[in-house]
Amino acid sequence: MDIELKNIDELFPQDLTPDQVNSAKTLFLKELSLSLHRHYGGKMMTLPKAGLYGNNWFNLWYTPGVSGVSTAIRDDQQASFDLSNRGNLVAVVSDSTRVLGDGDCGPAGGLGVMEGKAFLMKYLGGVDAVALCMDSRDKNGRPDAQKIIDFVKMAQPSFGAVNLEDISQPNCYQVLDTLRQECGIPVWHDDAQGTGCVTLAGLINALKLAGKELSDVKMVFYGAGAANTTIFRLVMAAGGKPENCVMFDVDGALGLHRRDIKDDPRYYRQWEICQQTKVANDIKVEKALKGADVLISLSRSGPGVIQPEWIAGMAPRSIVFACANPVPEIYPSEALKAGAFIVATGRGDFPNQVNNSLGFPGILKGALLARASKITDNMAIAAARAIADFAQEAGLTPERIVSSMEEWELFPKVAAAVAGQAVRDGVARGSMTKEEVYLKARQDISEARTVIHGLMDHGFIKKPPMELLEKALEKAVAQVRAGVAK
Amino acid sequence: MDIELKNIDELFPQDLTPDQVNSAKTLFLKELSLSLHRHYGGKMMTLPKAGLYGNNWFNLWYTPGVSGVSTAIRDDQQASFDLSNRGNLVAVVSDSTRVLGDGDCGPAGGLGVMEGKAFLMKYLGGVDAVALCMDSRDKNGRPDAQKIIDFVKMAQPSFGAVNLEDISQPNCYQVLDTLRQECGIPVWHDDAQGTGCVTLAGLINALKLAGKELSDVKMVFYGAGAANTTIFRLVMAAGGKPENCVMFDVDGALGLHRRDIKDDPRYYRQWEICQQTKVANDIKVEKALKGADVLISLSRSGPGVIQPEWIAGMAPRSIVFACANPVPEIYPSEALKAGAFIVATGRGDFPNQVNNSLGFPGILKGALLARASKITDNMAIAAARAIADFAQEAGLTPERIVSSMEEWELFPKVAAAVAGQAVRDGVARGSMTKEEVYLKARQDISEARTVIHGLMDHGFIKKPPMELLEKALEKAVAQVRAGVAK
Repeated sequence: MDIELKNIDELFPQDLTPDQVNSAKTLFLKELSLSLHRHYGGKMMTLPKAGLYGNNWFNLWYTPGVSGVSTAIRDDQQASFDLSNRGNLVAVVSDSTRVLGDGDCGPAGGLGVMEGKAFLMKYLGGVDAVALCMDSRDKNGRPDAQKIIDFVKMAQPSFGAVNLEDISQPNCYQVLDTLRQECGIPVWHDDAQGTGCVTLAGLINALKLAGKELSDVKMVFYGAGAANTTIFRLVMAAGGKPENCVMFDVDGALGLHRRDIKDDPRYYRQWEICQQTKVANDIKVEKALKGADVLISLSRSGPGVIQPEWIAGMAPRSIVFACANPVPEIYPSEALKAGAFIVATGRGDFPNQVNNSLGFPGILKGALLARASKITDNMAIAAARAIADFAQEAGLTPERIVSSMEEWELFPKVAAAVAGQAVRDGVARGSMTKEEVYLKARQDISEARTVIHGLMDHGFIKKPPMELLEKALEKAVAQVRAGVAK
Repeated sequence: MDIELKNIDELFPQDLTPDQVNSAKTLFLKELSLSLHRHYGGKMMTLPKAGLYGNNWFNLWYTPGVSGVSTAIRDDQQASFDLSNRGNLVAVVSDSTRVLGDGDCGPAGGLGVMEGKAFLMKYLGGVDAVALCMDSRDKNGRPDAQKIIDFVKMAQPSFGAVNLEDISQPNCYQVLDTLRQECGIPVWHDDAQGTGCVTLAGLINALKLAGKELSDVKMVFYGAGAANTTIFRLVMAAGGKPENCVMFDVDGALGLHRRDIKDDPRYYRQWEICQQTKVANDIKVEKALKGADVLISLSRSGPGVIQPEWIAGMAPRSIVFACANPVPEIYPSEALKAGAFIVATGRGDFPNQVNNSLGFPGILKGALLARASKITDNMAIAAARAIADFAQEAGLTPERIVSSMEEWELFPKVAAAVAGQAVRDGVARGSMTKEEVYLKARQDISEARTVIHGLMDHGFIKKPPMELLEKALEKAVAQVRAGVAK
């Protein structure tokens, strides 16, 4: 085993079945992640970005000199974006009630994911970020949307943007819509707009390879959560036709017959979709998928959630997005065997990772540099087109419909596209041109990567003992052999 | 001019009077601070503390591997201290309603100070910290104590401790007392307990030099805000006698005659002092100071707030703490001329900086390593004694009653003293011994300094252009000559 974990699939004993290898791989990553987080004590820290060239510099960064900064911001609150790190700082806010595929993990349960987001934000986007897992529980222990709203509104003077994450339904809709309305800084819901943006990018390129047009294709959306309802909205705004679509939630097809959705105002996003698709009666998902060109599934952690037979009935050159976390609804190998032409998942250890990590770092960087007051759907679509174009320039294949995270030059391009659209949409308060945003984003991202690798190269961040990796592997294999995990 | 700003007093033209030099120095620091903050875009950033040794490492720090962390915290919320940076992370929370000497600076107005605090926290204490300037205004624009309380309680799952700062009276009392009661993590009010701790340390050593005993001395407290009322409480707990003391607020001496204080429950801290000192009638501060041994003033920014004649009337070998920010109530040169034996201020550009920067980095580090649930007054007094002892070991003089911030070995000693007292007070939840805390704090602080200087040495943090320093000097001198500033 090497520390780079390059050939991860080859680590496992040859006598394991492909399904067992898939399980073992997931278990290995979880085990190792856990022991590495314990080893390092989490993964983010704070550091000065400004120098200290003598003891008198304390009098500049703190009292009495800092009074010059306090009074300058007192006289113009907007100056805080330039005089503090606010202009490059994102709050990654969650109430940990729906942490990736793990559900409600308690108020602190999202810290691993939110610090991970902050890690990616810095490494990929040159953006500073702080994990803020907040307690949204009311006296009865139920998550209260109003508490999240109050919290973010109180916190906003310290941040340039807010990234909402892993907030359970239906609170997430009210929280996002209220905050987008009432905050003076961009509020981005990565599970919704972020996933929507990157899925749209992947869909655009997958359709190119399949030789199909967005306005013609028949699409099935499996799952009606924050992610899939937003994907639907963005795909329609980008040219999809709602009458060619059906969406499913746990109770069946969304449509005009769904009084349960109509009667619950908290599900207004789903009711909009019922009205747009004009489905009149409940149909089975197998039937809806017969002859469909595209399946976009963001439902619940698999495998076994999507059946191979369903995919077998789709049109030729079918496109399957199985994007549940942490395990796709169907493993790509199974979906391809069932006849899918292109399969994408949310995972980085399979081809075609349609993961919002391709979007949010550049999107937030662009919004911050443009000093955008919000991130419009148009900005998200502009980002999607930039992501699609970037991958196309390097050449598309059914195993490569989007770039991977290591193609770092993508992110400044996304930032520039987003900033340019912010100007066109009238939400930019800054004065940078699209080209200036591109150059500044490129410089910041390049510097962030250089610093992080410099910390490793100079031993400020030390390599973990290989023993941790070996133990995690042993444990994963033993668990799979014991049949503990699926 | 050199970038170290070593001989700052010699930078100013010879024809300026000493008063003009004092003013020019403050103006220079403010001007330069402002332009440096703009140059760097604030002074704090976030960075990974863990390595990235290949692309598969994204699957460890983020999905799918991070799911192992989410479920571990879901099953035990306390695990969040070990599995995320929470165990070393402090929220520096302010509503910016009383920013150092500058009053209400609007919700974002405290960002310069709070980022400064985070800077010091890392450099001196090896503690990560995030500036959180929050909006406490109610619908009528008035700061609402309950909003600060709600905010901190919602934010606490992400942090190991909270440092409250620059919250206006009387909200600060209710906020601190409620949060200390209701939070599961330490809530430290640096303006109160922090200043109290370091002032007590300075007082202990000043009395040694003056050859006086804390239990005998006559003391006058000028100012009755959060800082001075807490100093009073700690000094009494450490052996001072309330019957030897008088405290003053803007309306005169605190005592049993003060119905205005008695009748306003928000000022319960002041009323406690009225009852303890048993002063029965209003007296003038000049009279109270006649023959007094100690003056502790934390009132409003000077100069000219304390008159030289008042000091002239004090007992021989008198001790004066003139600690208002950003300018002392009386300049040290004036106080010494009036007969004071020892003068301390809050400023680093005068001798005897009795600044809470000597306390909070080690105190919070010790509380975090001990996993303390709160910081008791006993822990603050233990810290004060550690600060006093450390300075004494290096030798005391009337110009050196406490150490300066660059004597970094102080901070691990404070951390160990605080952690040891936490165990004795029954508030430590961790398992580290006092010695282990000392060694871990020493290592973390040493590493923080090494990383920061490494960032500078390797050019990740670049030197600012000397032009900024020269322009600030020019501007300060011109302003003093024009008589703009006092």
